[in-house]
Amino acid sequence: MSRHPQLNEDGSLRHLLTLEGLSPSLITRILDTAASFTSVADREVKKVPLLRGKSVFNLFFENSTRTRTTFEIAAKRLSADVVNLNISASSTSKGESLLDTVDNLAAMQADMFVVRHAQSGAPYQIAEHLNKIGSDARVINAGDGQHAHPTQGLLDMYTIRHYKKDFTQLRVAIVGDLLHSRVARSDIHALTTLGVPEVRAIGPQTLLPGGLEQMGVQVYTDMNAGLKDVDVIIMLRLQNERMQGALLPSAQEYFHAFGLTPEKLALAKPDAIVMHPGPMNRGVEIDSAVADGPQSVILAQVTFGIAVRMAVMSILAGH
Amino acid sequence: MSRHPQLNEDGSLRHLLTLEGLSPSLITRILDTAASFTSVADREVKKVPLLRGKSVFNLFFENSTRTRTTFEIAAKRLSADVVNLNISASSTSKGESLLDTVDNLAAMQADMFVVRHAQSGAPYQIAEHLNKIGSDARVINAGDGQHAHPTQGLLDMYTIRHYKKDFTQLRVAIVGDLLHSRVARSDIHALTTLGVPEVRAIGPQTLLPGGLEQMGVQVYTDMNAGLKDVDVIIMLRLQNERMQGALLPSAQEYFHAFGLTPEKLALAKPDAIVMHPGPMNRGVEIDSAVADGPQSVILAQVTFGIAVRMAVMSILAGH
Amino acid sequence: MSRHPQLNEDGSLRHLLTLEGLSPSLITRILDTAASFTSVADREVKKVPLLRGKSVFNLFFENSTRTRTTFEIAAKRLSADVVNLNISASSTSKGESLLDTVDNLAAMQADMFVVRHAQSGAPYQIAEHLNKIGSDARVINAGDGQHAHPTQGLLDMYTIRHYKKDFTQLRVAIVGDLLHSRVARSDIHALTTLGVPEVRAIGPQTLLPGGLEQMGVQVYTDMNAGLKDVDVIIMLRLQNERMQGALLPSAQEYFHAFGLTPEKLALAKPDAIVMHPGPMNRGVEIDSAVADGPQSVILAQVTFGIAVRMAVMSILAGH
Repeated sequence: MSRHPQLNEDGSLRHLLTLEGLSPSLITRILDTAASFTSVADREVKKVPLLRGKSVFNLFFENSTRTRTTFEIAAKRLSADVVNLNISASSTSKGESLLDTVDNLAAMQADMFVVRHAQSGAPYQIAEHLNKIGSDARVINAGDGQHAHPTQGLLDMYTIRHYKKDFTQLRVAIVGDLLHSRVARSDIHALTTLGVPEVRAIGPQTLLPGGLEQMGVQVYTDMNAGLKDVDVIIMLRLQNERMQGALLPSAQEYFHAFGLTPEKLALAKPDAIVMHPGPMNRGVEIDSAVADGPQSVILAQVTFGIAVRMAVMSILAGH
Repeated sequence: MSRHPQLNEDGSLRHLLTLEGLSPSLITRILDTAASFTSVADREVKKVPLLRGKSVFNLFFENSTRTRTTFEIAAKRLSADVVNLNISASSTSKGESLLDTVDNLAAMQADMFVVRHAQSGAPYQIAEHLNKIGSDARVINAGDGQHAHPTQGLLDMYTIRHYKKDFTQLRVAIVGDLLHSRVARSDIHALTTLGVPEVRAIGPQTLLPGGLEQMGVQVYTDMNAGLKDVDVIIMLRLQNERMQGALLPSAQEYFHAFGLTPEKLALAKPDAIVMHPGPMNRGVEIDSAVADGPQSVILAQVTFGIAVRMAVMSILAGH
Repeated sequence: MSRHPQLNEDGSLRHLLTLEGLSPSLITRILDTAASFTSVADREVKKVPLLRGKSVFNLFFENSTRTRTTFEIAAKRLSADVVNLNISASSTSKGESLLDTVDNLAAMQADMFVVRHAQSGAPYQIAEHLNKIGSDARVINAGDGQHAHPTQGLLDMYTIRHYKKDFTQLRVAIVGDLLHSRVARSDIHALTTLGVPEVRAIGPQTLLPGGLEQMGVQVYTDMNAGLKDVDVIIMLRLQNERMQGALLPSAQEYFHAFGLTPEKLALAKPDAIVMHPGPMNRGVEIDSAVADGPQSVILAQVTFGIAVRMAVMSILAGH
């Protein structure tokens, strides 16, 4: 069996494409490294020189200002030079292929690519190509289609560890449109790897993918039952386009059945935390009283996300 | 009466939202600080480390390359990390609210927001929210609707002081579309605060707001009368959309009545200076012979504008 | 006869607008300087402080992510502050003239403008204006209309020198749409200046400009004849819009007659190198087997392009 393109021969991380298959110790090492970076943000000068003189390219084939900003900030705090490339409107429109674009940027001595792409597998394809041509450039998957969003998965793990300490005693519920969610897939891989004994998927039948049970996930289509006694609730964003599609009756009905309200939250453990990858649809998947309430750790996720991205970048850069 | 959200308890500047209500000494302090920065531009290395490691977010909900560039240059000369966010096409399109966006960026440990918004009061709303959640992030209003453009007002004051030294002996005319002008409002607040004894508003009746007299401004609808013996002429930009509206007959007629020509300029004092916030509509509100003539200080305003923005940023950052 | 605006009184380079008229020694000096920068990319920290505190403005009136990126990377590796301005959507839309925009940016103490413009002569016009107003800011032409693309010409010369050492023994073929190509024009000027004894133009009659013979270029409309025994083949990009126009029958027929295939390449010298300014239209002007083959130096061009742009910037900055 051939090696996964994200790993070096010695099993260390070369690229970050997916959390699937990463060892518990590797994930834990990333979280520990992130912990060492959280203090950087509290300094008077929020910078460390770990990536000084390195060129980080934000290759966004799909628009996402928020995600691009987190990587840009993380790279700049590591003192890297950052170049933002919004590709939809440029080379691709000139008919250049994805790999020609990558070849060109690699020839400019890029050190790292942060890749966001609507197509599942695009960052994987780029990483394999870079490995093949002998480039030392690294790839971070910043979300590819419905496949994976590993840095979001990692920051979710960081957040859970921060508040709950021990993964091996937890009941975690992921709620909403798991069918189209790269966040859910990355979270499930990480949670099971880190030894969470009970992961639950909650959503309408039409938005739950097949195969969840085989991944060790318990499936609930009734939210009240699913939230019972959980320690962690991860709400997913309901994409606008789903609300108009055939998969769902209406945003109001969705909120009634699967929106997280204070009443539903009361079914979870009293100290349960509420997470969301953002941006939130208030009144659709989450009530403002919960989003802004004492159990919400949604903004803490954002803060930890910077440290986690700094950690991934510095580990890939060899530190 | 509650404190204005732009001031700290001790009366020092926390945010810069409007010039209205700022004390003469505070405005003077900003101008004095700006003076110390004008020499930075003449150095071989045009940088000072005052904001090193700080994250400045240019939050532009309304497109303005020119204004964004002045803030970006000012922040980079202070050694800050700058992230440009053009928001119209991003989070907002995903249905995220203004304050959710701000919460997220604050969670990324933003140190400063430079906010441009088509809606009057948006930067004020952001600043109040940041104060409420206990964030240390600062807000600079880079133009909000028809309300205020305080850094433009400050750079105008800097320019006037540079050329005229003493505010208390001046006659200043502001000419054009005062009704829709945030620049005019900020200038009027600053001029009266700094003790200018005679501020004149000149324009067609349809483009003059009510309440000018109460602000201590003399109103003229005849430009020849209004320019008589003034020391300073501040021309306003005529927005293109006004020219097609019901408020004005035509660009040509406007130029005839209120465009600044060498003939009309001759009515002012011989050493009068001509200012304009840019970008100019040559041949509409100003004749090229005046814009490029010896009394024009329009490009000096741009140069001083960088120093003034550096001053505001460094004062807000606590220096 | 008046001095060319790109030269100082002493004949040194003030701006880089065109390679036409540059002396062999000046071009050679740029290439030698670039050679000293190629090693920067191999360092752990890919930065030199030559432009620290300088403000470089990428003034792109025509969209080109790839070219903008090469200049951005080059400037950042020289430690400059870089501001990207995509002008189509901004000031110009507010009706501001090109020179007003330049005046404003010069007033912000810009040190260097990298200008891309669809209109031939725009960077020349900007440079003349800056000279006239006594500004010290420098202009680099990053491609103007169908006129010139001098940094591409220089990196092509760098590439040829790297692989072939001696210009005075070479046969160089430029193939494709020379009529609309600023790259071809810059290459021809540089090749003849550097003493290449035989420069050939190959293309369909409809895409060959008049006057080539007067420039010392041999014209071929038959590719097999034109490629015979050449040392260097410079393929040009066929613009998509040409393929639908009256100048060409179809992309397939074009490829048949002028696309570079392994068979046609075999007509050149065995050690001939293949160049292309990118982005490539695979299967239109070049076969993938050639583009990715052992004689292709297309990606080396990109790498050298960074060093060449660093060299131009540092020479213009006075180093």
